[in-house]
Amino acid sequence: MPSTVSAMTDWIGLAEEVAARLKADAAERDRANRPPTAEVDLLRSSGLLAAEEAADAVTRIISAADASIGHLIGYHYLHLWRAELFDNPSAAARMRADRDWFWSGVSNPLDAALELTPTSDGFIVNGRKTFATGASVADRLVVSATRVDTDEKITFTVDAKADGISYPSDWDNTGQRLTASGGIVFENVAVDAQDVLGAQPADSIRLSLAALGFQLALTQIYVGIAAGALAEAAEYTRGQARPWLLSGVEAASADPYILAGYGELVASLEAAGTLADRASESLRQSAAAGSDLTAEQRASTAVTVSSAKVFATRVVNETTSKIFEFMGARATATKFGYDRFWRNARTLTLHDPVVYKAREVGAYFLTGEHPPFTGYS
Amino acid sequence: MPSTVSAMTDWIGLAEEVAARLKADAAERDRANRPPTAEVDLLRSSGLLAAEEAADAVTRIISAADASIGHLIGYHYLHLWRAELFDNPSAAARMRADRDWFWSGVSNPLDAALELTPTSDGFIVNGRKTFATGASVADRLVVSATRVDTDEKITFTVDAKADGISYPSDWDNTGQRLTASGGIVFENVAVDAQDVLGAQPADSIRLSLAALGFQLALTQIYVGIAAGALAEAAEYTRGQARPWLLSGVEAASADPYILAGYGELVASLEAAGTLADRASESLRQSAAAGSDLTAEQRASTAVTVSSAKVFATRVVNETTSKIFEFMGARATATKFGYDRFWRNARTLTLHDPVVYKAREVGAYFLTGEHPPFTGYS
Amino acid sequence: MPSTVSAMTDWIGLAEEVAARLKADAAERDRANRPPTAEVDLLRSSGLLAAEEAADAVTRIISAADASIGHLIGYHYLHLWRAELFDNPSAAARMRADRDWFWSGVSNPLDAALELTPTSDGFIVNGRKTFATGASVADRLVVSATRVDTDEKITFTVDAKADGISYPSDWDNTGQRLTASGGIVFENVAVDAQDVLGAQPADSIRLSLAALGFQLALTQIYVGIAAGALAEAAEYTRGQARPWLLSGVEAASADPYILAGYGELVASLEAAGTLADRASESLRQSAAAGSDLTAEQRASTAVTVSSAKVFATRVVNETTSKIFEFMGARATATKFGYDRFWRNARTLTLHDPVVYKAREVGAYFLTGEHPPFTGYS
Amino acid sequence: MPSTVSAMTDWIGLAEEVAARLKADAAERDRANRPPTAEVDLLRSSGLLAAEEAADAVTRIISAADASIGHLIGYHYLHLWRAELFDNPSAAARMRADRDWFWSGVSNPLDAALELTPTSDGFIVNGRKTFATGASVADRLVVSATRVDTDEKITFTVDAKADGISYPSDWDNTGQRLTASGGIVFENVAVDAQDVLGAQPADSIRLSLAALGFQLALTQIYVGIAAGALAEAAEYTRGQARPWLLSGVEAASADPYILAGYGELVASLEAAGTLADRASESLRQSAAAGSDLTAEQRASTAVTVSSAKVFATRVVNETTSKIFEFMGARATATKFGYDRFWRNARTLTLHDPVVYKAREVGAYFLTGEHPPFTGYS
Repeated sequence: MPSTVSAMTDWIGLAEEVAARLKADAAERDRANRPPTAEVDLLRSSGLLAAEEAADAVTRIISAADASIGHLIGYHYLHLWRAELFDNPSAAARMRADRDWFWSGVSNPLDAALELTPTSDGFIVNGRKTFATGASVADRLVVSATRVDTDEKITFTVDAKADGISYPSDWDNTGQRLTASGGIVFENVAVDAQDVLGAQPADSIRLSLAALGFQLALTQIYVGIAAGALAEAAEYTRGQARPWLLSGVEAASADPYILAGYGELVASLEAAGTLADRASESLRQSAAAGSDLTAEQRASTAVTVSSAKVFATRVVNETTSKIFEFMGARATATKFGYDRFWRNARTLTLHDPVVYKAREVGAYFLTGEHPPFTGYS
Repeated sequence: MPSTVSAMTDWIGLAEEVAARLKADAAERDRANRPPTAEVDLLRSSGLLAAEEAADAVTRIISAADASIGHLIGYHYLHLWRAELFDNPSAAARMRADRDWFWSGVSNPLDAALELTPTSDGFIVNGRKTFATGASVADRLVVSATRVDTDEKITFTVDAKADGISYPSDWDNTGQRLTASGGIVFENVAVDAQDVLGAQPADSIRLSLAALGFQLALTQIYVGIAAGALAEAAEYTRGQARPWLLSGVEAASADPYILAGYGELVASLEAAGTLADRASESLRQSAAAGSDLTAEQRASTAVTVSSAKVFATRVVNETTSKIFEFMGARATATKFGYDRFWRNARTLTLHDPVVYKAREVGAYFLTGEHPPFTGYS
Repeated sequence: MPSTVSAMTDWIGLAEEVAARLKADAAERDRANRPPTAEVDLLRSSGLLAAEEAADAVTRIISAADASIGHLIGYHYLHLWRAELFDNPSAAARMRADRDWFWSGVSNPLDAALELTPTSDGFIVNGRKTFATGASVADRLVVSATRVDTDEKITFTVDAKADGISYPSDWDNTGQRLTASGGIVFENVAVDAQDVLGAQPADSIRLSLAALGFQLALTQIYVGIAAGALAEAAEYTRGQARPWLLSGVEAASADPYILAGYGELVASLEAAGTLADRASESLRQSAAAGSDLTAEQRASTAVTVSSAKVFATRVVNETTSKIFEFMGARATATKFGYDRFWRNARTLTLHDPVVYKAREVGAYFLTGEHPPFTGYS
Repeated sequence: MPSTVSAMTDWIGLAEEVAARLKADAAERDRANRPPTAEVDLLRSSGLLAAEEAADAVTRIISAADASIGHLIGYHYLHLWRAELFDNPSAAARMRADRDWFWSGVSNPLDAALELTPTSDGFIVNGRKTFATGASVADRLVVSATRVDTDEKITFTVDAKADGISYPSDWDNTGQRLTASGGIVFENVAVDAQDVLGAQPADSIRLSLAALGFQLALTQIYVGIAAGALAEAAEYTRGQARPWLLSGVEAASADPYILAGYGELVASLEAAGTLADRASESLRQSAAAGSDLTAEQRASTAVTVSSAKVFATRVVNETTSKIFEFMGARATATKFGYDRFWRNARTLTLHDPVVYKAREVGAYFLTGEHPPFTGYS
């Protein structure tokens, strides 16, 4: 990271530069479906991995260009952020010192837990997880596992290339193809005691914020995807689309339906982005509350994050499908790859079923019920 | 106004008190359809008319309880605010000194202009306008008219009960029934020179902000109506609705479809409110720019306001119709008057055709085109 | 009924005449909110009550003009039709002989059952029901009650003005105001043995078709309401609406958004009407199957009816709200009464919660599950 | 065609057999993106190419399994059908005699016309067209070209492998990948006089039905795609989807949101299919009217077809995106290829801009305006 990059606007400028490079061949790389090694190198060499203070903005900007890489960097910032939730300043500081490395996480709540066995100077970890986004191209990992002796859930960091870790290359999906979201296998991997962030009791209000952070990161990526889809579609409408023969106008960009059509989507996207910002601010305040964080404040933040996610989910799925109507049939040529926006949106918005987020929002509104603490709420 | 009411939170508390009184018999007053004389008295005596610094919040709170009265107070604040756009500090200050009086305006852009004839010490005004919201129950009016000698458009203030002003009682509409939005007739009404705010040339960037203020006020009312509809529906769902026989749950408020249904609407409303706030901040900044306001900044504000309006229009119309599905058939009894939310929303969202706002947003996004300066954009 | 009226087209012509008379003052009668005595007289004197063979078409045509009266005549036909489901040709024939009288029913499944006590020559009936659509203005009633001695559910007919029947005038609702859907009280009302249609065991496949008939009648009314709303809106758009100042067209009926807007709604309405026709044909076939009707055929018909209802519900609520955007703000004047379409639609579509109909359709599609036999499915 | 296949049900049975074979490897073939030579062989050898009397049903059934092949066979039937519109029984009969061959067409109205030069015993044709669906894998082609001497538009048939015809292999699109919809080049291709179907004057009411036939065929394919998407999704939901951790149910197929979600889509699809059937019947009647076909009947048919297309477009785009919410994140694995339904739908529904179809429907409804005769209306 160039030491002169310090202010928010500098990070944004840097993100835009990186995004421009990613956008240039995003469609081609999506088709090639190779592990995002070069892309992570770009993030690392650009200095952008240290932009945690501008995490939301950077995540959106990168996601607009390449939603997979936006996903990787959004989660990277999240892992750094959530380290602070543990009551372990030295381990968190060590992570932060390494923030120019690319961080990923291993914690899919739907799989069986990894097993952690104490040793003289730490632990060894065993087991396998599906869906460890970015792990196979990461430098360092944040991992959650369960102590076999105490049944405690423990979170720690480990070198992503450590002995005993392997990555079955099994990620081949419709969308988010470059996220390296395949599985991971741990065979007697040693964990150093000083790399343990701490225990994660299921009822810890403060640690429960981590799940909200993931939900918010997803939301920011959705907003970014929708913005990217609209921007690229607009470029095409202006430069290549043809006016319809019955439209009576000279250019597609003067067609009344195309104009109002963009307007409807842009208004929705503005709303989604603004609400995501508000959710982010609410989460920041909850995190800043430290040990004063109450169950009520946590619930309020959770529900604001869920509202933002419910709404952004609707917007990104609608936007990425609708844009084609403003471009026309020729825009479906594979070379343009415009369908990747929908494929990315559709895939990523299935992370967990959004209707249960809506239910959560409704329950809180109607009865004041707090969302439960899960890996998703 | 009690002199101790000064901070934003005090205004909000006061607004909530007034709103509670309005809500108590809103359905009944809607049916009675009488001029809102008592309601304006309540606003006046409460001190709330001086709460311009909290205009957005107060407008929403009052609109949630009674959208007609929210409309009246929202426009009242707007008339005070837009006085500042004229380069006439003394006339604006005189208006502000009278801000405990209830202000309305006369300026429907779709009617023929009122005629203004110079006299030795001012003007006389003649003509008629349809749709002068609140004028017949106002204390003071802000009026726009055209000088017969110079064809200039002039804005001035006048006593609402002045000799020569009459109000044909012709407002009887499906929604916003208590807004006294009927016509007004001027017959040789004298205007004092010192009550002239100034000329309003069609190409003035600064004065063109007034139209955006109206659009934003409407948007805030929409947000308020949706909030009021959801709040009253939730009260009913909790207290009176019955679980459906095939639902397998004990209470309507545990029905999975009702919970997710509320959640969807609440998420949309959060988005609408947040975006309206952002539009309000953009308008505030454009107004604060004074003579430095550029065409580009004005366009950006106009489009943000339009995005907020496009989006809030969709939300309020959907919300006010959908809530019935969470209450059930018995909630359609006239005594509850829950249909007034939809009637108010449907009526007020027709103020000007929203699809042309969407078009405006789309054109700016796609081609950078600035919205024209009209009474509506 | 004029003896020359025999063919379907004649019934349709007659229905259109009656509808034209009802449409002429529908808004005014909606406001007046008087019991529909004159309207039922009109139905009776016109001969239209005998048009059972054209029931669907007539119900739609009358509903388009006045949804309340469409509701009354639709249910009238239904009561005659469902009499045939009982294995009692003589009682059904007696009803059919009286089909020029106006028939209503008393059977709200959500209320406690009426009590039927055997006497030497029939029964006496006691109890009260809410929501007996049309009963207070009917000539004859079809009533369901439970035998106190055997717990059997029995259906019979009775004179609507019989001694001991009273009608608390408690119907005052947002929509369907002229349906006289208030309550009914029976105090020792005598029932003649020959007026008993039969027992209605809960597991009778054939008798379970009655509930589907009600669901279908509601669907036809929804289709009629949407058609009426579009027709009246189009009349206004053509004759009274003004082109928007930024539209660049000379007439509202040339506005591109208004044209496409109507087109979207008309296409949906065509779909709704066509599907309702198909559901009607399916129900006709199930009824014609007589004792050969299988549980599977009944389920298939039930689900087709539910599909039609789910879809028509969406269409009618959307259409009756959206039309205002093609007319503009002036169309919200109370004198036009265009909001009655939405009020009628919104009220009637709450008859039973439509999401449980969607669930029923989904369950059958996904797992083949048969809808249960209830008063609503 | 086996001579015993004669009744509609036999054709449907045969179509289902062919569809089952296509479905088995549809995802794999979609990825491979090879010209559909083997698929056309299958159609040819199965005898299904002769099933014109069951064209709608067969087109839907095949489209549900493989939308590309459904497109090919739907257009094949269309070319045979539209031959009858020309007043040339012998040429049409010759085509019909060859109906076991696979027919495609060359007539994209948006390209410059092909040039037809008279010779002693026929014509030679020159020029190029983009988007000639199926031509490169066809046996015979129906081609439209313009006589260089008279400027008449002439339609004729030609062997698809004739000397001088070449196919630039330039079709590589997001959806409908196996339709071989690339370009075609004619270099001095000889046309036999007896293969001329006739001239196609732009104002011929009867010949103008051809464009409606294409629109209807597209509509039937949309209906088929939506049906296929729902069927495959249901299979997955039943067999592989997992219940959500907060759902409280044992199986995804018991989740209340999944059940109602399917129900909503199934109801819409039923409506779309039923309306498409009605449009087909209207077109059949218009074609059967022969020279009695009036401009009004043609307009009415055109608008019914457009309504069906507008509606089916909405349904298929919504359905093919929404199904993923009933399957969950794992269903986005590339191996399943479930995204092909959306890609096919999204691509094919851009054939011509649907909003202009909505406009056409609205204009006819509002003002009685007849759709113009174009290649798309």
